[in-house]
Amino acid sequence: MLPDVDHGRFPAKRVVGESVTVEADIFADGHDTLAAVLRYKLKDAKDWTDAPMTLLVNDRWAGEFPVTELGRYVFTIEAWVDHFETWSRQLAKRIAAGQDVKVELELGARMLEAAAARADGQTPDAARLLAMSRSLRAGKSKDLDGQASALMRRYADRSLATHLGREVEVLVEPVRARFSTWFELFPRSAGTLKDVEKLLPDVAEMGFDVLYMPPIHPIGLAHRKGANNQPAQKGEPGSPWAIGSEEGGHKAIHRDLGTLADFQGLVKSAKALGVDVALDIAFQCSPDHPYTREHPEWFKHRPDGTIQYAENPPKKYEDIYPFDFETEQWRELWSELLSVFVYWAEQGVRVFRVDNPHTKPFAFWEWTIGELRRKYPDVILLSEAFTRPKVMYRLAKLGFSQSYTYFAWRNTAYELYQYFSEITRPPISEFLRANLWPNTPDILTEYLQTGGKPAFQARLILAATLGASYGIYGPPFLALEGRALKPGSEEYLDSEKYQAREWPRDDGMRELVTIINRIRRENPALQSDRGLRFHLTENEQLLAYSKATPDNENVVLTVVNVDPHHVQRGMVSLPLDELGIDSDRPYQAHELITGARYLWSGPRNYVELNPFSMPGQVFRFRRRVRTEHDFEYFL
Amino acid sequence: MLPDVDHGRFPAKRVVGESVTVEADIFADGHDTLAAVLRYKLKDAKDWTDAPMTLLVNDRWAGEFPVTELGRYVFTIEAWVDHFETWSRQLAKRIAAGQDVKVELELGARMLEAAAARADGQTPDAARLLAMSRSLRAGKSKDLDGQASALMRRYADRSLATHLGREVEVLVEPVRARFSTWFELFPRSAGTLKDVEKLLPDVAEMGFDVLYMPPIHPIGLAHRKGANNQPAQKGEPGSPWAIGSEEGGHKAIHRDLGTLADFQGLVKSAKALGVDVALDIAFQCSPDHPYTREHPEWFKHRPDGTIQYAENPPKKYEDIYPFDFETEQWRELWSELLSVFVYWAEQGVRVFRVDNPHTKPFAFWEWTIGELRRKYPDVILLSEAFTRPKVMYRLAKLGFSQSYTYFAWRNTAYELYQYFSEITRPPISEFLRANLWPNTPDILTEYLQTGGKPAFQARLILAATLGASYGIYGPPFLALEGRALKPGSEEYLDSEKYQAREWPRDDGMRELVTIINRIRRENPALQSDRGLRFHLTENEQLLAYSKATPDNENVVLTVVNVDPHHVQRGMVSLPLDELGIDSDRPYQAHELITGARYLWSGPRNYVELNPFSMPGQVFRFRRRVRTEHDFEYFL
Repeated sequence: MLPDVDHGRFPAKRVVGESVTVEADIFADGHDTLAAVLRYKLKDAKDWTDAPMTLLVNDRWAGEFPVTELGRYVFTIEAWVDHFETWSRQLAKRIAAGQDVKVELELGARMLEAAAARADGQTPDAARLLAMSRSLRAGKSKDLDGQASALMRRYADRSLATHLGREVEVLVEPVRARFSTWFELFPRSAGTLKDVEKLLPDVAEMGFDVLYMPPIHPIGLAHRKGANNQPAQKGEPGSPWAIGSEEGGHKAIHRDLGTLADFQGLVKSAKALGVDVALDIAFQCSPDHPYTREHPEWFKHRPDGTIQYAENPPKKYEDIYPFDFETEQWRELWSELLSVFVYWAEQGVRVFRVDNPHTKPFAFWEWTIGELRRKYPDVILLSEAFTRPKVMYRLAKLGFSQSYTYFAWRNTAYELYQYFSEITRPPISEFLRANLWPNTPDILTEYLQTGGKPAFQARLILAATLGASYGIYGPPFLALEGRALKPGSEEYLDSEKYQAREWPRDDGMRELVTIINRIRRENPALQSDRGLRFHLTENEQLLAYSKATPDNENVVLTVVNVDPHHVQRGMVSLPLDELGIDSDRPYQAHELITGARYLWSGPRNYVELNPFSMPGQVFRFRRRVRTEHDFEYFL
Repeated sequence: MLPDVDHGRFPAKRVVGESVTVEADIFADGHDTLAAVLRYKLKDAKDWTDAPMTLLVNDRWAGEFPVTELGRYVFTIEAWVDHFETWSRQLAKRIAAGQDVKVELELGARMLEAAAARADGQTPDAARLLAMSRSLRAGKSKDLDGQASALMRRYADRSLATHLGREVEVLVEPVRARFSTWFELFPRSAGTLKDVEKLLPDVAEMGFDVLYMPPIHPIGLAHRKGANNQPAQKGEPGSPWAIGSEEGGHKAIHRDLGTLADFQGLVKSAKALGVDVALDIAFQCSPDHPYTREHPEWFKHRPDGTIQYAENPPKKYEDIYPFDFETEQWRELWSELLSVFVYWAEQGVRVFRVDNPHTKPFAFWEWTIGELRRKYPDVILLSEAFTRPKVMYRLAKLGFSQSYTYFAWRNTAYELYQYFSEITRPPISEFLRANLWPNTPDILTEYLQTGGKPAFQARLILAATLGASYGIYGPPFLALEGRALKPGSEEYLDSEKYQAREWPRDDGMRELVTIINRIRRENPALQSDRGLRFHLTENEQLLAYSKATPDNENVVLTVVNVDPHHVQRGMVSLPLDELGIDSDRPYQAHELITGARYLWSGPRNYVELNPFSMPGQVFRFRRRVRTEHDFEYFL
């Protein structure tokens, strides 16, 4: 059955306005006709609604239901032998063979009468059934029409129906959980939260709808880190992830950034522009965090009595104390951490990026996210777990709305094809929504370090068109910052993690970002990952893929040259039938970045991509091209 | 997890002497080392045995356990964070980095002490752990050797272990459920059961180990069918599947065939030759069956009071009354039908071929087979359900040991490749064992009708080497009978279903059958479907596949020309590494039908198959060919 995440252990995911298509194998012994319904409701509602299921092929049935509200839906399946349909199908064959059907008509009449009894109180229907029954007894089988089937299904005897025997959950989230465009910046590089507020119109104009800031809390002094991850000199600001000082912890704002009122103002101004402010939830403490004094029992202690700092032996991170989630006082600790989410939700925050969730217990996330979503069903949580695939998948199943992926390290066409074929299809697509980042403060890939502007352009186009959600660590991306701390490292030189930076406004990326984000807004096909299909290019440096809405009303083809150093050309093959394009007539390929229009015909078409002008093209298809038949006198 | 048939709803299947390899995703948050065990037992036993699981790759773990007795085993999985291994791995890194490890040694010492406490009563182990603990406190970490890990795992603290939370069943059947060679004949064509007994040495000599006879019960007179499915003339014997007359029903023997004593004698003589007599269980009645008089309530009645005959509208089968399995008296009916199996089991029958199980309720089979197997855990049941794939699969899941397949209608190389790739791999291979029949009394395929002797030879070789179990409807197969009732029909002309036939002893097939069955007995690779792999041939008329034992000790390659009309030739490509063959040295391909030996080298080798001499070849590989290094003075 689909969807059915780990046999119902976890909910499938949808967003408001989508539908849930359920597929199941439904069969019985013998050759009787079956009937099946999908039954669904909001989890806490009382009454079920039935949606019909129909046979696809090979005993596979499908049905669907819409999800229109945030929260949890449940569905189940009920199927039964449809004796009336079986009888009706066989009757037709008997009549066609010229057999005496007197006995069969009597059997049918009895079924109609029984249904009439079940329709008791619904007088018109019962009367209609009884009338048909009388017709049969009078030998007039033709008086049964399509309505008989519909009526008999409505009043079917389902007392012997087979039930799925369990309720499968569907978690329904806001549309932005599926389609979002993130811009990350360090607020201290802008100055204060008020300065960030001034950047909002610019961010919104570029087409971003989530503004994500690393932690904004007070930063510890003990073992503080300075520029390029060296011990801090006096006056250096430290890493925002070393959370907590005498000023406060996870619910406080760093005094250099401003006040709670400033923050509330920022959130409000952003909302007015359609932008969500996303906070970073990093559940760890600097040694100066108030928790370390007020709740030493929430931390592990070494035999010498000191609190255990974070480490990945032999590396030590003495500026960070991890929580001991399995402490005897875990209930208090977990409640407090939940209250951190709730505190910021109360300030209007609905989007959270969660730092390293894979180093905290699965059970903690399932409980915390469940509780948070009960209060705030519109929260969106992005899981920052760069770890093994199955752990990433588990976190998604536990309730994270979106997940960082390995996108940053998938740079060849084949790698991208493989990886996105895997994660955008069931079963993974039922619970995981990818959020694609070409760069983050921790990840400056070798591709970006060595590929120059074409590499940034290609990665932007890929992220924004492969993923319905994507994000950039904005200022250095716009500035084409490609300098690493040292060869072989993915750390930025002079990383903003340890120091404020001033960034040039941009280096020609701003325009492309703005165009690409507009294309995303204008093309619903790009707002979901469900319709993703890869296409043959006959050149291994060219990656081609399309996305389409389920009705094929909007079809967008992207072709990217993943080689940032050379012109690449090749033929792109499209499955025109699947894309709803008439293969007998030319069709228009409208290139949305440049605005150029091409006339294509047939499934194979030529593309040539020069990375030094633009490494990618995004085409929208117009199915039909005008011909003389479009003139009025032909109509 | 594998095996896990429908999330544990049905058991996986094995035979005595096999092992069960269990694979599962096992992971935790964080980066600690894990430990896992597979726990298993006979279902009714009290104590569990642990078998270690080891990490394969990508959080996938595997373990295995042997099944040595008939009946039901259960297994489950337990996994936990191995704190000692984690500590030990990190300690090595710390020491390598030259860090002060005093505190870590203390932590390790405490873990050893705690384990010693858990080992209480096992004095030598506890003493050893305590000694190691003292060594650590003395700073001597080198005193920990491989034994520490093993001991610490033995006394691991599993109080916080994660459990699978359910017990997964494995049904263990006799070896013959996996590896069997069937010969079907109509006893009345031989004469009596005593005459059949005289044929036994011949059947055994040809290498068959199951002798299967269509129903041997009294045959009804009402609407009896005669030659070629016409209404019977006086004196015609009728179809053995029209079971029951005044003489008796499913527990009686047709008087023309002999007595119960004759039958018991046949079973006994067969056993002495290593042959099982298989009976046909067809749960349906002729209108003359005693049940119709004694238990009319076990049948459906028409409005006119008559019993409902079988039909597939507009076709009527008035010589057959199906049972009404959903009658009010279903308990009595089901019990009686179970008693039919039990009756014949009491006469020594252990192998049953079940006619059309897909037209009886699934629940009936699950209950009946379960009860039967409780009394006779060594029964083998072959499901004759030529119906939709999912219904066939369900019947296998419900307990049938073997299943007829679509083999008869898979005649091109690609069809065979596709179909057998599907059914011999998980998940299907966990519950379904194919039994391959080139022909049956109901199925004379067009391939056999038109292909002549090469077609019979090719189908025999395919059935016997693709399937660990196969069977032939023997006399007409040996006689190369290819005449159908009419064009487009798969019915035999003058079918034995309606009349006795005399068959010529054979037409040259007997020798090939005997050789092929000997090859099957001598090559364990052919006695299981697990090691089946298909290979490229560069000719679509040539099908090549190999079977190998898990240790690659026995590797058998079969190449068949599926075109019965033309010589076909091509290169066969073998994955030498997977087959355990040294690719740098020549190897011997011993063709087992003709006895010819070829020297092959490298993965690609030439084959040419002339259907008019022999359409298939079966090679056994000798890994090494003698060279001068084999002379004594090189050793």
